Amino acid sequence: MGSMFRRMVVAGVGLIGGSLALAAKKQGLVGEAIGFGRGEENLRMARDRGIIDRYFSRPGEIPGGVDLLILAAPVQATVSLAASFLPALEAGCLISDVGSVKASIVREMEKLLPPEIPFVGAHPIAGSEQWGAQAAVADLFLGHRCILTPSRDTDADALQKMDGFWRAMGAKVERMDPRLHDKILGVVSHLPHVLVYALVNTLGRAKVDSVDLKSYCGGGFKDFTRIASSRPELWRDICLVNRRAIGKSLSDYIKNLERLRKLIRDGKGDLLEREFARANEVRRQMP
Amino acid sequence: MGSMFRRMVVAGVGLIGGSLALAAKKQGLVGEAIGFGRGEENLRMARDRGIIDRYFSRPGEIPGGVDLLILAAPVQATVSLAASFLPALEAGCLISDVGSVKASIVREMEKLLPPEIPFVGAHPIAGSEQWGAQAAVADLFLGHRCILTPSRDTDADALQKMDGFWRAMGAKVERMDPRLHDKILGVVSHLPHVLVYALVNTLGRAKVDSVDLKSYCGGGFKDFTRIASSRPELWRDICLVNRRAIGKSLSDYIKNLERLRKLIRDGKGDLLEREFARANEVRRQMP
Repeated sequence: MGSMFRRMVVAGVGLIGGSLALAAKKQGLVGEAIGFGRGEENLRMARDRGIIDRYFSRPGEIPGGVDLLILAAPVQATVSLAASFLPALEAGCLISDVGSVKASIVREMEKLLPPEIPFVGAHPIAGSEQWGAQAAVADLFLGHRCILTPSRDTDADALQKMDGFWRAMGAKVERMDPRLHDKILGVVSHLPHVLVYALVNTLGRAKVDSVDLKSYCGGGFKDFTRIASSRPELWRDICLVNRRAIGKSLSDYIKNLERLRKLIRDGKGDLLEREFARANEVRRQMP
Repeated sequence: MGSMFRRMVVAGVGLIGGSLALAAKKQGLVGEAIGFGRGEENLRMARDRGIIDRYFSRPGEIPGGVDLLILAAPVQATVSLAASFLPALEAGCLISDVGSVKASIVREMEKLLPPEIPFVGAHPIAGSEQWGAQAAVADLFLGHRCILTPSRDTDADALQKMDGFWRAMGAKVERMDPRLHDKILGVVSHLPHVLVYALVNTLGRAKVDSVDLKSYCGGGFKDFTRIASSRPELWRDICLVNRRAIGKSLSDYIKNLERLRKLIRDGKGDLLEREFARANEVRRQMP
């Protein structure tokens, strides 16, 4: 049995792109995994560690016969990256991505691409605050959700293929409207990141006599703020591209926070306890 | 060699009080550990599990010869609890506590107590979101900070004794002005709790089509919001008693959050990335 794709290019061999290359090769889904990126050193390391088979650094140098192009760069770069490859792509090459934001990418990709180059938006919900190909592992997606975000115009065969591709790598595949995806992730993922960045910066800027507050941050605080070690460019892009949904969830969040602040200020113990008990209950209902 | 204290009463046999009883007995620091509380069932369980040797449920029933009284109730109850024991306490009985807020407790305890009953404020920085004596463990304080918060009026011998008591249980003892303690903890501990409660309630109240957002909260979100499972009464009390420091840190936090919100809204990618990189750096400097 031949592999699902003959030749895959992963544009952006970082934690996600590198893990995807490892997983796809491990499952025999691709004949060859080729890396693309600007950082020569990272690409060489990825090749030497067997994450990719070979690599290239200019879009025009893309080899012939590529039938799957995975865009795994920060989300703001996704569409322009696709545009830079476009002149050299062969008809039938499927393009997909791994971005944490979907609506604008799907919309712009569909504007950009001709019918013979199908696009399927995908978001594997896996990762960590680690960066780069050195953090890549073959089982990163195992048991995790991968959300595919087809539009009305998405090619049905391409969608089916990417569905099978992600299932074969162990992901739990789900299909969802791209805008709904962005709203959900805006609350459950993007909002927590923004508020932890704000918390860590509050700590960094706080002046409490001459005390170094950082030395009082125990393991709990460190665990809690782990996501503030995520890659700044990545989260800059996510925030800008999903700014509408994040803006809405930030407004909702600030309302909830102001509610607590007022209850604290006014000494409303009963209502405060009720708010905390409500949070207890919501959390108990998480899977 | 005799034990440091002949008879210790722990008022509030929960996670902290229970662990303290276990640790003090394990290290031979107390001849006897006696529990006090309102929940008969919890006290009986604590006795049956060997956490305490015996218990009583009315302050007036306190046995004779008690030379150490540890107040381990939620912080708002601390002073009134001490007052209820006061008529039955013998001269020389040392009182201490384990509360997460110190300035007002130290001030009010000193107002309440006669000179022959010394008080030493203490805050062992250990714990988890678990509640009750069933979660108590003898090594809870091992390697963790315990902050003692003497005032000018604190009895030097009593302070020295509590210092040795906590060191013997494996804690790293530190002394600090009670107000400074409250400011520091307001930023590194109380603020994170408040903002996670607000986050979980934002999620609980969010309406994103008919989606159950909770099912999209992965392990990361669950880890992140673990502290929102903490006991509501406990945090209600901490928030009310330390309301000034928490109010200040909440204001600072909201400023940082609004800064990010504006940068996102206005699409200021460079400045946003700089804020995120700054948080990276602060976190890298944590011990």
